[in-house]
Amino acid sequence: MDTESARLRAGEAYELTADGGISHHVRTAHRAVPLKDGDSIDWFLEESLERQRSQRLRSQGFFFPLLEETRMWLVVVLTGVGIGIAGAWLDVLVKWLVSTCARVVHKSDILLAVAELIPWGRSINNGPIRALSQTFIYVSLAIAFAGSAAILVKTYAPYAFHTGIPEIKSILNGYVLDAFLTPWTLLIKALGLALAVASGLSLGKEGPLVHVACCMAFCLSRFFKQFNYSESRRRKLLAAAATAGVSVAFGSPLGGVLFGLEELDTFAKEGEVMWRGFVASAIAAMALQWVNPFGTAKLVLFQVTSGSNTWRGFELVPWITLGVIGGVLGSLLIRINVEVALYRKNSLLRDFPVTEVVAFSALTATISYMVVFCRVQSSELVANLFQECDPAKGDYHGLCNPSAIWENVFLLLLTAGIKLVLTAWTFGMMIPAGIFLPTIAIGACLGRAVGLLTQAFQRAYPKAWMFASCPPDPTVRCISPGFYAVIGAAAMLGGVTRMTISLVVILFELTGALSHVLPIMVSVMTAKFVGDALGKDGIYTVWIAMRSYPWLPSVEPRDQGQTGGDFMRPFEDLVVIEDGVNTVQELEDHLKHWDYRGYPIVDGQTLIGYVTHDNLQVAVDHLDGGNDSSAQTRKCVFAHKSSFGDDGQIDLSHIVDQAVLQLRKDTPQEVVISVFQKLNVRHVMFTQNGKLLGMVTKSDVVSLLTSHFPHSGALATGSPGDWAPWSPEEVEG
Amino acid sequence: MDTESARLRAGEAYELTADGGISHHVRTAHRAVPLKDGDSIDWFLEESLERQRSQRLRSQGFFFPLLEETRMWLVVVLTGVGIGIAGAWLDVLVKWLVSTCARVVHKSDILLAVAELIPWGRSINNGPIRALSQTFIYVSLAIAFAGSAAILVKTYAPYAFHTGIPEIKSILNGYVLDAFLTPWTLLIKALGLALAVASGLSLGKEGPLVHVACCMAFCLSRFFKQFNYSESRRRKLLAAAATAGVSVAFGSPLGGVLFGLEELDTFAKEGEVMWRGFVASAIAAMALQWVNPFGTAKLVLFQVTSGSNTWRGFELVPWITLGVIGGVLGSLLIRINVEVALYRKNSLLRDFPVTEVVAFSALTATISYMVVFCRVQSSELVANLFQECDPAKGDYHGLCNPSAIWENVFLLLLTAGIKLVLTAWTFGMMIPAGIFLPTIAIGACLGRAVGLLTQAFQRAYPKAWMFASCPPDPTVRCISPGFYAVIGAAAMLGGVTRMTISLVVILFELTGALSHVLPIMVSVMTAKFVGDALGKDGIYTVWIAMRSYPWLPSVEPRDQGQTGGDFMRPFEDLVVIEDGVNTVQELEDHLKHWDYRGYPIVDGQTLIGYVTHDNLQVAVDHLDGGNDSSAQTRKCVFAHKSSFGDDGQIDLSHIVDQAVLQLRKDTPQEVVISVFQKLNVRHVMFTQNGKLLGMVTKSDVVSLLTSHFPHSGALATGSPGDWAPWSPEEVEG
Repeated sequence: MDTESARLRAGEAYELTADGGISHHVRTAHRAVPLKDGDSIDWFLEESLERQRSQRLRSQGFFFPLLEETRMWLVVVLTGVGIGIAGAWLDVLVKWLVSTCARVVHKSDILLAVAELIPWGRSINNGPIRALSQTFIYVSLAIAFAGSAAILVKTYAPYAFHTGIPEIKSILNGYVLDAFLTPWTLLIKALGLALAVASGLSLGKEGPLVHVACCMAFCLSRFFKQFNYSESRRRKLLAAAATAGVSVAFGSPLGGVLFGLEELDTFAKEGEVMWRGFVASAIAAMALQWVNPFGTAKLVLFQVTSGSNTWRGFELVPWITLGVIGGVLGSLLIRINVEVALYRKNSLLRDFPVTEVVAFSALTATISYMVVFCRVQSSELVANLFQECDPAKGDYHGLCNPSAIWENVFLLLLTAGIKLVLTAWTFGMMIPAGIFLPTIAIGACLGRAVGLLTQAFQRAYPKAWMFASCPPDPTVRCISPGFYAVIGAAAMLGGVTRMTISLVVILFELTGALSHVLPIMVSVMTAKFVGDALGKDGIYTVWIAMRSYPWLPSVEPRDQGQTGGDFMRPFEDLVVIEDGVNTVQELEDHLKHWDYRGYPIVDGQTLIGYVTHDNLQVAVDHLDGGNDSSAQTRKCVFAHKSSFGDDGQIDLSHIVDQAVLQLRKDTPQEVVISVFQKLNVRHVMFTQNGKLLGMVTKSDVVSLLTSHFPHSGALATGSPGDWAPWSPEEVEG
Repeated sequence: MDTESARLRAGEAYELTADGGISHHVRTAHRAVPLKDGDSIDWFLEESLERQRSQRLRSQGFFFPLLEETRMWLVVVLTGVGIGIAGAWLDVLVKWLVSTCARVVHKSDILLAVAELIPWGRSINNGPIRALSQTFIYVSLAIAFAGSAAILVKTYAPYAFHTGIPEIKSILNGYVLDAFLTPWTLLIKALGLALAVASGLSLGKEGPLVHVACCMAFCLSRFFKQFNYSESRRRKLLAAAATAGVSVAFGSPLGGVLFGLEELDTFAKEGEVMWRGFVASAIAAMALQWVNPFGTAKLVLFQVTSGSNTWRGFELVPWITLGVIGGVLGSLLIRINVEVALYRKNSLLRDFPVTEVVAFSALTATISYMVVFCRVQSSELVANLFQECDPAKGDYHGLCNPSAIWENVFLLLLTAGIKLVLTAWTFGMMIPAGIFLPTIAIGACLGRAVGLLTQAFQRAYPKAWMFASCPPDPTVRCISPGFYAVIGAAAMLGGVTRMTISLVVILFELTGALSHVLPIMVSVMTAKFVGDALGKDGIYTVWIAMRSYPWLPSVEPRDQGQTGGDFMRPFEDLVVIEDGVNTVQELEDHLKHWDYRGYPIVDGQTLIGYVTHDNLQVAVDHLDGGNDSSAQTRKCVFAHKSSFGDDGQIDLSHIVDQAVLQLRKDTPQEVVISVFQKLNVRHVMFTQNGKLLGMVTKSDVVSLLTSHFPHSGALATGSPGDWAPWSPEEVEG
């Protein structure tokens, strides 16, 4: 919380305490106390703050609202340009690191120089010793890169570890975690990401880039007062930034928008947000294209050069098979990842995160150096696997050798297996790490293997009935294994993330394979079906559940006939404030004794309203500090009455929450949950005939919806990242 | 309403009246009376009906829920396949009609034969007389096609006119209009559409195909009881069908999904619906590709063959210009269309819809015959305008002649102008007519014209600084006018429909121009900015407002500080029922006297609940028809009490609505509106301290949100289509 916004919020709080006498209708909304990390924002309140501000501006003429809009767009555009350039330079940096590294390993300049100096040195430069020393340098460099990334993260910005997408999902849902978006985190995440990618660990840059984009937008937003006024406005900006991040990560402007739509689940709320994400995404992609890191002036990263644009009906069989494999292995990857995360949390590893990174990067580098497909950067591997065999272009590690099909299939499956295990471990270590690229690499290996097998089968039995649709000329290619790799990648991603439409769009923007949208759709569909059967949640949802963020999944809830009444906290268990009964002194004692988010106000059992702890605290403090020494013993009234104060009572009706939602207690549980999901409220009261029967809070609903996952909250405290435990948002007794 | 579902619903109603004594907790939800056209569904009720059914099924073992799911998917798949095949055969039919027509016109077989018979006949076959007779035949055929389409629509299925998308938007939002989706409408719309397209009128098949797809899904759903149980389930199916329709219309499976998302605004509610739309869309596209109407085995309709995949920075200037033009002309098109619709409604034309179609198709045909670009089918024109000039492919009507640039630009602008006026009139006549293709054609003409001008400019001043990025070799093309046509089409569509993302996706699935996503995005963005400045609503929204459908736009509402209390109907104006005061006889009188959708139940001013007119009617009728003759004079109690009936009272607490939403009256108006938008409720009560202060209904919100449009409700009654007036959904006094 910087001082500017703290001052601002405190200012608002002061305004509140001063307007006790203002009439009911013109009273304004306030944040009584600054939001702090771990809070959840009150969407109703934030929206009204934004509304008040824009009304005030509109009342000052048309210029100010225009300026306000311009500022919003300015931040959107700057974020887009910024992340575009940052993404491009990150690529350049990684390329430079990797190529330098490769030069060192292959030329072994220093080693050669040393060898020249000593008399028996020449013999070192040949044979197994040379190979060993190359391996040693390769591994050392990997360790150096990964280790420095881990040290950077641990020392300067513990929030820069992992992918960041679970946190961004939660923040967009209303969670407050400003420490996650500081300039420091921005810098460390970007730098650490470059090092981590260059280290050859099994991770991608996609998720972290989204985090970087959000950090940029957040830091920029700090310069403009309007975003400090309203957290909901800031979240709309962050949503746009996140789409820009995806847009740059994949060179996929549409995919970015759809990712925001499907995975971040923000645009469901308003078309305007979608529109802003669209603009941010387009601008970011343009900036990326302008910087042109690869000198191709193309956004398409892994251009697929499929000779034939058509596909045959029988190919649906291997494609659906790939979908099934993707669903199964995706679920497996999630499960291993969860187990690793739990093991890390509950073992010695917890205290030595940097050591873990160093050791694991040494292991990764050693294994990778032995398996030829693992040795290169994942992106290079994927680009080659997506490529069709073309004699003019040369053969990538013998992949196109028709006489070595079984060897190639074995090598591809081995690579996929190794990468699966490495990825499951890496995703969660103390370094910036995305899951997209490794998943694509695993899927591409599997897909290429299935493609090679299908091709071999077709070549062996060209006359079989199912291959009748292939061209009769055996020299014409009927099956394109490169495209099978794309399908495999789609299926694997579907299994791991459980995204659908955004995946398809990202994949075909990534490959340019527009003509093959349908097969990609089919495999993603199958993978999701199979994956969902093995466990409902994608990897991001699982991490959110493990970290216990107050994030409401947008799943359709299924009750067994329960009603709201069945899972509300009944009236008897609630800590309430009686209207017109308590004196200021008693309220003070109450506030000291209880530490809940807020309290329903009742008269007998009749519901009067709801007041938050913070608002009540500020009001009581003000009364306490006032000149009127008799205030302590006067009773407080919360209901709005025509003649208040006549018998010495203090009117506190202005601090009662404006928007309290009431439902009947026999409202079906599903409806109650969808009220929370759609309106983003923090609590709902159940009343009947005006009487308060009970209430349900957002945290009740979150824990209900994540209860099916066995490890909910497993990482909520004391994770390797020294993660602040999530302080339960509402704990009404 | 077919008898099956009516019987079913009546059965449920019977169930209701029989369970008066069932305890409060296990009581079931019902539709007391069948829904009829003009109603709005109660989403809470329909969701609970669906929930009850699935609970019942789950209690019978795992097989039945599986069967239920299978049936759902069966209908989705069948609809997808059906609309894919229907779309393909529609194309074939149109092609056949058009080619037959062309053969008749050009060969003038009959005319030639007649001419041979008479001695001076040979002179007819030359010169102006021949041209005149060709024109005559051309016009006659157009009239014949259009006239028969109009007669079919007027006689058999008045709901088959127009595009259908405004109605589908309303239906998906909860409006009940079963007559719009009958098999008869399906048949006439498909047949009439083929005739209308073949007649050469300025219309497209895209919107109507969405309607046809929805009709198919609706008719199929009639065979499965589960959809009759729950209207919300049926609507989820219809949403999937609509995406399949778009998918087939444009050969754009992803565009279909996004159209559903953005324009139909359905998926905001649930991920599951998006997912089903995704599947339906993919299957429909596969079916289309399988039938392969054009023998190309490609989904891409207007393949763009742009030689260069790169574009230069200075081209942003003409593209943004095109965006501005698209925004302005799009708004103009909407405005002319509205004026024409109002004129049609308020003039003699109203009574002669078929005559209007005949006369206007004669006019269209005459004008079109004179302007060479108007003479062909719009789709053929668009395909040629999107094509780059290539000496190998021949020159389309001299479009590539570099010495005739000014003539071509003039011709293109003339074509665009003519088509604009023709389209604005055609969209709303008594024939099936979509607005997409004509809009694309107008935009393509404009874009090509701008492209030609830019190209000419660049060729004239190749050394100018802004063209420095062009290749120095003058024989290499720097500017691709064909691609400018695509940009123009995007901009114009943006101006007319105000869609964003779905448009971009549809356009690049339509053209295969993936590398040019960014320019398309930029022009759509600009067009939407400019268009929104000239009038907030797209053409579909305007038609919904003119027809007064109870459709809630998803716009972000802006209040001026009003609260719910400012626009609610206050308690004093409400017709309420007093709890425990009225006898059955009095309630009967009450129901005869008032015809509102429902009544709040109060005790004094304390809110007890809400009961719908229909539910109360059924309950009262049952009590009245019972054996207990004393029922008439016993008082009715709605509040749930521990000991009811002890003093001769009748307990009616089981008919009180389960889900009544209560808010405080100082909830900001924006929040109240977003409660309606997001939860799709029909009414909200305002209470304070348990006392009813007032209520707001969905129709209040709809009229508030459409009040800015000057012609709201202008076409609500007695339109040319003999449209049933929209009976106001809720009229609480």
